[in-house]
Order: sequence, then structure tokens, then C-alpha cells
Amino acid sequence: MIQFQCDYTEGAHPKILERLVETNSEQTVGYGEDAHCESARARILQLCQSSTAQVHFLVGGTQANATIIAAALRPHQGVIAATTGHIAVHESGAVEATGHKVITLPSDDGKITAEQVRGCYDAHWSDSTHDHMVQPAMVYLSNPTENGTLYNKKELSAIAAVCRDCGLLLFVDGARLGYGMASPINDLTMADYAALCDAFYIGGTKVGALFGEAVVLTNAQLQRDFRYHIKQRGGMLAKGRLLGIQFDVLFTDGLYAQISEHAVRLAMRLREAFLKKGWALRYDSYTNQQFPILPDSAYEKLSEKYLFSFWEKTDATHTAVRVCTSWATKEENVEALLRDVEAL
Amino acid sequence: MIQFQCDYTEGAHPKILERLVETNSEQTVGYGEDAHCESARARILQLCQSSTAQVHFLVGGTQANATIIAAALRPHQGVIAATTGHIAVHESGAVEATGHKVITLPSDDGKITAEQVRGCYDAHWSDSTHDHMVQPAMVYLSNPTENGTLYNKKELSAIAAVCRDCGLLLFVDGARLGYGMASPINDLTMADYAALCDAFYIGGTKVGALFGEAVVLTNAQLQRDFRYHIKQRGGMLAKGRLLGIQFDVLFTDGLYAQISEHAVRLAMRLREAFLKKGWALRYDSYTNQQFPILPDSAYEKLSEKYLFSFWEKTDATHTAVRVCTSWATKEENVEALLRDVEAL
Amino acid sequence: MIQFQCDYTEGAHPKILERLVETNSEQTVGYGEDAHCESARARILQLCQSSTAQVHFLVGGTQANATIIAAALRPHQGVIAATTGHIAVHESGAVEATGHKVITLPSDDGKITAEQVRGCYDAHWSDSTHDHMVQPAMVYLSNPTENGTLYNKKELSAIAAVCRDCGLLLFVDGARLGYGMASPINDLTMADYAALCDAFYIGGTKVGALFGEAVVLTNAQLQRDFRYHIKQRGGMLAKGRLLGIQFDVLFTDGLYAQISEHAVRLAMRLREAFLKKGWALRYDSYTNQQFPILPDSAYEKLSEKYLFSFWEKTDATHTAVRVCTSWATKEENVEALLRDVEAL
Amino acid sequence: MIQFQCDYTEGAHPKILERLVETNSEQTVGYGEDAHCESARARILQLCQSSTAQVHFLVGGTQANATIIAAALRPHQGVIAATTGHIAVHESGAVEATGHKVITLPSDDGKITAEQVRGCYDAHWSDSTHDHMVQPAMVYLSNPTENGTLYNKKELSAIAAVCRDCGLLLFVDGARLGYGMASPINDLTMADYAALCDAFYIGGTKVGALFGEAVVLTNAQLQRDFRYHIKQRGGMLAKGRLLGIQFDVLFTDGLYAQISEHAVRLAMRLREAFLKKGWALRYDSYTNQQFPILPDSAYEKLSEKYLFSFWEKTDATHTAVRVCTSWATKEENVEALLRDVEAL
Repeated sequence: MIQFQCDYTEGAHPKILERLVETNSEQTVGYGEDAHCESARARILQLCQSSTAQVHFLVGGTQANATIIAAALRPHQGVIAATTGHIAVHESGAVEATGHKVITLPSDDGKITAEQVRGCYDAHWSDSTHDHMVQPAMVYLSNPTENGTLYNKKELSAIAAVCRDCGLLLFVDGARLGYGMASPINDLTMADYAALCDAFYIGGTKVGALFGEAVVLTNAQLQRDFRYHIKQRGGMLAKGRLLGIQFDVLFTDGLYAQISEHAVRLAMRLREAFLKKGWALRYDSYTNQQFPILPDSAYEKLSEKYLFSFWEKTDATHTAVRVCTSWATKEENVEALLRDVEAL
Repeated sequence: MIQFQCDYTEGAHPKILERLVETNSEQTVGYGEDAHCESARARILQLCQSSTAQVHFLVGGTQANATIIAAALRPHQGVIAATTGHIAVHESGAVEATGHKVITLPSDDGKITAEQVRGCYDAHWSDSTHDHMVQPAMVYLSNPTENGTLYNKKELSAIAAVCRDCGLLLFVDGARLGYGMASPINDLTMADYAALCDAFYIGGTKVGALFGEAVVLTNAQLQRDFRYHIKQRGGMLAKGRLLGIQFDVLFTDGLYAQISEHAVRLAMRLREAFLKKGWALRYDSYTNQQFPILPDSAYEKLSEKYLFSFWEKTDATHTAVRVCTSWATKEENVEALLRDVEAL
Repeated sequence: MIQFQCDYTEGAHPKILERLVETNSEQTVGYGEDAHCESARARILQLCQSSTAQVHFLVGGTQANATIIAAALRPHQGVIAATTGHIAVHESGAVEATGHKVITLPSDDGKITAEQVRGCYDAHWSDSTHDHMVQPAMVYLSNPTENGTLYNKKELSAIAAVCRDCGLLLFVDGARLGYGMASPINDLTMADYAALCDAFYIGGTKVGALFGEAVVLTNAQLQRDFRYHIKQRGGMLAKGRLLGIQFDVLFTDGLYAQISEHAVRLAMRLREAFLKKGWALRYDSYTNQQFPILPDSAYEKLSEKYLFSFWEKTDATHTAVRVCTSWATKEENVEALLRDVEAL
Repeated sequence: MIQFQCDYTEGAHPKILERLVETNSEQTVGYGEDAHCESARARILQLCQSSTAQVHFLVGGTQANATIIAAALRPHQGVIAATTGHIAVHESGAVEATGHKVITLPSDDGKITAEQVRGCYDAHWSDSTHDHMVQPAMVYLSNPTENGTLYNKKELSAIAAVCRDCGLLLFVDGARLGYGMASPINDLTMADYAALCDAFYIGGTKVGALFGEAVVLTNAQLQRDFRYHIKQRGGMLAKGRLLGIQFDVLFTDGLYAQISEHAVRLAMRLREAFLKKGWALRYDSYTNQQFPILPDSAYEKLSEKYLFSFWEKTDATHTAVRVCTSWATKEENVEALLRDVEAL
């Protein structure tokens, strides 16, 4: 079976493995305070054009989300997210386990708007019993979203402006940040993220690394004592250098951008093929996740050879699926799929 | 500098890296449900001589401790540990962050006794206001302990018997389990751990792996829904196979035992040299961590070339330090240290 | 101003105050283990026709909800409620603060159905990634609801049957239980509640007491160690007898039913007057809370003399308000309001 | 039986009941925003000589402790207390349930010292792995302590100075504050407490009220959004006026001081009698709790007529007990006990 069901089916980019092998017998101090981590941090800060941000390396996304949110909020506060947001649906209650409510806003395509955020804030504070309700204090979004859709600079800036105006923190989950930045419709740079967000992270797990997310904290309040929070939430890797080495490689000679572009280029070819075939797209994605709505006969036929993620039945005879590419997707596998789609 | 300050200064055993490279481009499903994880689980279950235990792979020790304890306890219950226990001191309140008190028992050498556990239990239930106090419900210990000391089979069996009698769960943190099992004074097998404990884990991070702890759950109640807890606490690795591959290698052809023995053999040579030198040992350890009490002049001299962990000042002119060996410790580095100690 | 905005504007039924004065200088043991509490428990158990249920007295509703839910759920589990449910909206995140998600089901009138519960359960377990999601484990509803609507025996039995079938616990918040049981459309007895629910409580705060909710636990698992949970959540009153005395009075000679009937009879007179006036009702309530939709001119006029709760603007010129009666509502105040409505 | 086992065996001071009866049919808004609460707040602020402090009324002590501590700390922080502190022992893990560790300092008599606090702070920050440990952020003490002992102004000022110097918050549990202030060795005023502490509370439950603790917050950071925390922790009484009325009465015409003095005067008579009898005191208390060490024969004999709290066996033939007086203790009961002690 050729697997397109998600973007973490393979190991790591070969350059990462090479570097892990090369450095394997070095002796370093633990917990992210070694020279590899320092080097990776410097590369990321340079991209962020920031001299005051902090960079921390965590193992995974759920961990990063729960750690950042718990570090940022006081007990009576909650985090605003789309109803479809990863923290709202797919983290087994990791945020609630830290004591906080996820305040959900309706979303058709995974995105929320500045107006919705403002509305949520106003609704809270205009209610005379607001101190009987969870106080919204942070906005969480992912870019790209769970549905492959993308916030552009204007949209993200508008949300950031509302956040600043209302005293809300802005946190962007970038588990697939590379694939967003490689999108043909992207206009956001790493420096934009650093300028607009209080916290965001650069996904490694789905973009070339064995595992790891690089958390960038620009808000001084959030930076304070953040290592305690990482430790408390189980995210402080003893051999922290493993994370440093991986991000150091990913941000050397533009590797992160290159491998992201590979994935998106292949995804765009699939997108065009699906549209040409007359299949609607469940979400209008220009990133590495595509959501074609397949006639069930086509779905059945393709499933003999390819693995997709079932998304939902859209009507009696059609099914939306998720088809992912990644840094590791082989050109030849995409070619095969393109041929098989065309031949249906 | 030659580093003896901890047992996680290097990467992974070369065979693990080899296998990661070999399998890198395989496509597998995520979250620990791939064939590598299955194979590793089967090997561990065989060593445990159990057909009903569950094996789960988690990234690190703090995470494993918090996840197991939170999954096991109801809100009003606490976990008994030595005052020096890792969960009581060095996890930034990870257990408390899940809502539970660590009930500490005094300990000189890192170990607690069956009598202490029984005493704690009896003290709780004989107090007429016991429902105003945290109810002891689990015993946590690590073997070897933080101080390098070791429970033998008789001691662990006695604790297990008290636990069964009192309805307490028994959980053993085995972050250094390999080094305990390779000790000349050890008489516990993996099957003994499985028979005596409700939960324990086999440390990989400190014993040959890049990272990872293999959690063995023998208690059916604890097994139920355990994957939800792993996910909620941020421990479910997307590329779960990375853990499966590592433990699969470690438990092929006795590698785990071999590399543990290497570390302990070198530690025993150091132990003898320290004693021969007339240096007392802060704890009577027969495992990979040694705690010699050095004259400050010797400490200063050796620190020019070697890195130890400062432990504590024992008097005005002496300092206890921690000297660790590991699977990766080079024979030549130990030889050098032995010569330099002798020459002092 | 005559206050109709809520059902807790006055103190307690005079018989309760009388009894508090009478017993004031008695010396009793604390924490709910005195003879007054025992007597009140016996009266409630008799009404419940149960010999195995436990009765505990807590100070308030939010406390009762959080304590029961936290005692019942394991960390990865959540509680199902209507989007409008008190725990979902008006408790400042008390449930999330204990680590649990409130899983909300849409509701027009405050009620949820057995079909919705079944659907939620099925959706969870049929999802292949269910262990990445919060597991539904309990159903919370209030009767009457926040909107004054009422579940009848058939509806509650259907929900209870789904719960039993799916292994979900059923918990009924009865902050206004008396007003529900006094409704002309009610067909549920206290014994029915005890037979159908794993836990429910009989509201005192809104029905004649100074404060207090009598929690009835029928599920043996939930009963175990429940006093620890009360203590931990701050609900164990030192002078526990204050709660026992109040419920003892309320359940002597049918006082609870009598005073509830008084409130509902007056509410029904208001309901008829609103309808007669041509005002629609926002919710079709046959309990002590009425939700007429007033022309804004009428709202303004009546607000000179009466206090209502603003509920929502229903269109540009109309406003829905909440008008409450209670055990303490004076006949003459209702007469005055009826006259003033008629005269508009 | 005449009960001396605790200081909450009776109801409330008659003037409180009178006032509750008088105001019973008044209609007021809920949740502590009525005129009675306002009046009580004004009286307390006047005693505190503060125009910027906030006063909030909570139902009980465990609730007050957990609410204040949870509102004040970030997740990685803990609260320092004596090993014997109420939060460390007798609250069923209420503080841990909010996610925080209670960092205990040894104490012989219930008190901790400024030096101990400084030492704890220094030990944390001088440890190179401090971010692996719970960060001390608040000092909790009660005055009087659980053992009846009392901090004087010099001692409390020294602790406050260390706290300010180290950035630690100072919180005083005043469940028995009245009995402390009425002690012959007391030199602290309410204004001193307000000047020295970030938060403290004035106990009502044990000092004349049916229930209730008046929390005084002087720290602006802690004041912010505090009502949300009260609501979230289940402490916001619907009929909030019940608390306002009680404290309004207690702080009218010096009632709180008068009734406290009554209790302490009687306790001092008992103290003298015990000493005269040759019985040692387990703790040197000048407040309403006395801890005589009784020959077991005397204990047995007195137990036929009087109820004391068993404290501990001090040797094979002696038992320390707690004997409490309160605002409600009858002169004649103390006379009887004095006679019976003398006659032994």
C-alpha cells in the first residue's frame, strides 16, 4: 500500500539521520542546554529577526499546546479556538487536564476571524454575570488549519490587532508551518509570525524531523520560568541535543523551506488532478493536505492500492478523504496516483 | 572534559542508529500501532513471562511517572514515595499538576521499607479524621533509587505483599532498570517485576536509547483506556515506531543486559578504587551511579579534567559527588580516572 | 423595587430560622455527622424509597456539580451536557478546573434527548482515533432546566436507558427540583429520580433554605470515599448540622412540596397573563421561571417597579426576560404585577 | 457530655441569628453584591486602615485556602507551609487538587521562621537544576497555628520582610484570628495584618458565625478577577448577604473582639489549672486551644463527662489532648471542669 493518509509515515530527512550519527558519541550536557540547541536557536531567531524571543524545543504538538496554554493562563481563563481546532477535538482533553476551558467558535473551514474573536470578547465582558463564566484570555489557531486552509497576513494581522486591543494572547500552532509557508498563496514570513504572535511553534514532526516542535515565545511574561513548565508537562528531553541537532539541520541552507516546497508542489498536482476529474474539494486547501470528495466507487477502487484518511460521508454516494503529501513523499507515488485517478 | 556527571551524555547505541537508518523510508501507521512496536512489545512480554500485561512506549520518565500516577489515582488519593524520590523532588511538580499529593516517607539512602508503607497506611486509616487527609493509594519507588541503592527480591516482595494487603498499587520507576538488573547484588528478573508490580517501566533514555521508556502494566484496571492518558499527557509520539524500533533493538540478542553490564562493571572498578583510596561512599551503591566523598583538594584537582555532579558538602573539607557510568562510557576514560585517582 | 429576577432574593422559610434558633446552643460534632443530619438523611431516603443510597449535604450548586463530576470521572473522561447547561456556561470553568471537558450537545430549550446522548456516544466509539478524544462518561442535565423546561418520566427514563446501555453515568442537577416536582406537567417522584440516576441533588438554596443542596448517590462506586471529595472541594461545612437542620425542616410534613407548589401556582398565573396579553414565551415553561417576550415599551414601563432578568433581545423591539417566583414570593406582589401587565 | 473537643460545636452568636431573622424577608441581589456585604466590607476595611484592600466573603476555610492559593500561583509554583499546616495535612489534598505542591518546613510547635523561609528560597535558587523543582512562591501560615501558638509582630514582620525581599507572597490563614488577637501575648492589630500580608482572612466559622471567612486581599495582582476564582472553586454563595450580615454584626460595637476575649479568658483559666495540677502542656499556647498532657487515668476519668480531642500518646501512660474554648463556651462548664481537674 502507498500511504497518503497522513504526513508522518516516514522517519526523518536523511541529513538529520546523518548528523545524529556523526554526533552520536559526543558528550553533552542535557536538557537543551548544549551547543547544538544553541546553534539551532540562533538560526531560528535570525529567521524571526528577533533578539528578544526565546526558543524552546519540545517533543510533540499536544505537549507544546498544553504547556504553552497552561503557562499562559490563570485558572479562570480559557483559550478561544475553532470548533475544529486540534486542542478542541484531538488531544484527549489535554488542555482541560491543565484546568482550562477551550472556548469554541464555529468554523466551516478551520479558520476563525478577527470579528469572531472580538465578538467572543465583547459577549463575555458585556454580560453582567461575566465573573460566572470562563474569561477568554488567549486565541489559539493553527496555520495551516486542520483543514489545510491558510490565514494570510491580512487575516492574521487583524486577529493580532484585536488580541492586542483586548489584552488577549495570540498563539499559533505551526505543526505544519513549513507547508503553510510553502503554499502558493502564503504571504507570511517567520518574522511576521514573531511580530504578530505571543507564541508560536515551528513543526518538525511533520516536516522532516523524527519528532520535535520549536516553540518561539516573544511575550516576556510567557518567557519567564518557561523551562519549569516544560519539565512539569513532561516535555524536557534528557538528551535535549536530539532536538537541537534536528532543528539545526532543518534550518541550515534552507532545508526546511525546500522540503516543504516539495510536499506542497506534489499536493498542488494532486489538487489539479482532482479538480480536473470533476471532484469537488471539501476545503479549498493550497497546502499539503487535500480533501477531495470521491465517488464511493472511485474511493473503493483507489483504496486497493492507496491509503487515505476517511474524513466524512458527504452524501449517500460520496466520501471526503484526506490525502497528504510530505517532505518524504516520493514523486513516483504521486505519479502513480495521478495516473490511476485519470484512468478511473 | 571527560563527562561522568550523568548517564545521558551520549546519543544511542550504534545498533539503534543503524536500525533507524535502515527503516527510515518505510511507511508505517502512527501512534505506536506499527509492526516495530508490536515486535518490541512481544519481546518485552516474553521477558516478563506474561500474556496479559500491556506494554506502552513513552518518551521520558517524568511523563511516564505523571501519566501512570494520574491514570491510577482518584482525585482524593496520593502516592507514597521516599522524600528523595524523583517524583517528590525533581519533576517540577508534575504529579501535583495532575492533582495528586506525593506522600513522602523519610529515607536515608533512597529506599523505603514495607514497614514504612504499612505504617503510613495504618496511620491514615486509624485517624478518625482520615477523610480530611489525602488517602494513600499507590507506592512509587525506583529501582535502582536516585542514590544508586537497590531493592532486592525479598524487599520488593515484602512491599508488594503490604500493597496487596492494603489495596495499594505498586509502581516501580525503572529509568535505570538495566543498571539495577546488571548489579552484582541483584536477584530480580523482569518476570519478577511483572509479577510483583501493578506497573513498572524499563528505562531506555539512560540505557542505550536516544529516548524512551517502556511501560509495563499488569493491572487490568490500569490497562483500561491507557492510550487516552498517554495522549492527554502529551506522550503519544506521532512516529511511534521510533520507540518500537529502539526497544526492539535493545531486546534483541540480550543487548539491553549486555550494555547495562558494561556500565556496572566500570562503576564497580571505580567503587573499588574510591574505597581503596580511603574515600567513604555517601551511599552504598552497586549500580552505575557512585557517590564518593572526596577531599575538596581531590575534587578540585579532578575537576580540571572530569565532570562530576556536585551532590552535597558533607563537612567543611569534603564533598560528595555523583560519578556515573553508562552503556556509552569508554573503558579508556575510566582507566584515566582510575590512574588519576590513584596518583592523587 | 419588587424583585422577580431570580429565586434567591430572600432568606429562608421561617420554620428553618425558627429551628436554627431553637437548636443554636446545642453542642454537636462537626462535618455532617450529627443527629440533625442523620434525621434529614433518613427523611430523604424514605422519599427515595432507597435503603442503599447515600445522602450528603453540600453548600451550593457549583460545588455540588464539580464535586460529583470530579469524583465520578477518570482524567480522560468528560461529561455530556446541553450547550446551555449550567456547568457549560455559568460556573467559571469549575468542571474544567477539575480537569474535565464538558462535551456539549445543541439544545433549543435547555433539554437534550436520549437520541442525542446515544449519538454522541456512538460518534466517539466509531471514530478510529477515539483515544485522541475525550471519552464521554457521564450525562449531566438539570430538571427543570435553565430555561424552565422539564423532562418527564418517559424522557428521563429513555436517557437513563441509553446511559445504562452505554456505561454512562446519569447525574441530575436539581437546584430547582422542588419547582419541577410541583409543576402541573410533572410525573416524576423522588423515588423515580433515585431509581433512574446515579447521582442527583435536591436543591435547598432556591427552595426555602438559606443555602444547601442534598446530594443523593445511588451508585455504589460513586459513594465510595465521597466525603474525601467533599472535603477536597471545600464543601465540608464545619457546622454541618446547619445543613441537616434545614433539610430536616424542609422534609418534615411535606414543607418542601408545599412551598414549591406556592411558587409554581404563582408562576402559572403569570404565564397565563403573559399569554393572554399576547406575549409569546421564549421557552414553554411550566415551572417557576417564566420567559415572556415583552415589547420594549412594556419592558421599560414595568422596569420602573419590577426587577426582571434580561435574557436576550429577540428582535429590534422585543426583549425576552426571566421572571421568577419562589417559595418566598408574596401573593400581593404577583397581584400587582398581574394588574400592571393587564393595564399596559 | 460537655464538649471541649473543638471550637465549632454550637451555632452562631445570638445577635447574628437575630439579625438573620430581622432581614429574612428583605429582597436583595445575590452573590455578595448587596448592601449588607457592602456594610461589612466597610467595617473591615476601616479596621484594616486600608482604602485599597478588597474584602470577599467565603463559606469555609479549606475553600478560602484553595481559592487564594490557586488564584495566586502559576502552575510551576508551590506554597511553603509548616509540616503541621492545615493545608499540608487536613484538607484532603485541596491545594494539590488545584495543581500545586505544598512545600513543607519542619516545625515543632506549628510555627515557621523567617530564617526557614529564607533558607527554602535560597536552597531552591542556588540549585543548578532549580527548573526541575517546584518554585516556592508563597508563604502560608496560620495565626494562631494549629497548635495554638502565636506569631508576634516581630516574627510576622520578619517573615514579611523575607517575603518582600524574595518576591514571595505572604498569606495568613486566620480561621482563629479573633482568638489570636484576644491572646494576652498578642501585639498584632488588624491593620498590621493588612500591612504585612498579601492576603489573610478573618475567621467567622470558629468565632461566632454560623459559617464564613472574610478574605482581605491587599495585593493588587491577587485582587484582579478574584470573583471568578471564588465562583470557580464553589465559594460564591447565591444568598451572599448571609455572609455580609454575619460579618456586619461581628464587626459592630466590637462584638468580634469581645467574644474572642471571652474564649481566651476561659482558656487561660484552664491553662493555669492544668499547670497547677502539674500537667505539662504539649504546646505553649496562650489562645483558645490548650494541649495538656494528661495521665491516662485522669484522661479516662474526665472522659466520662467531657469530650476532648485526642492528640497523641506522649508516653506509655500519658496522652496529650486538645481542649478548646470558644465564644459559646459556658462559664459554668469551665467551672465544672476546673473543679473536676482539681478533685482528681
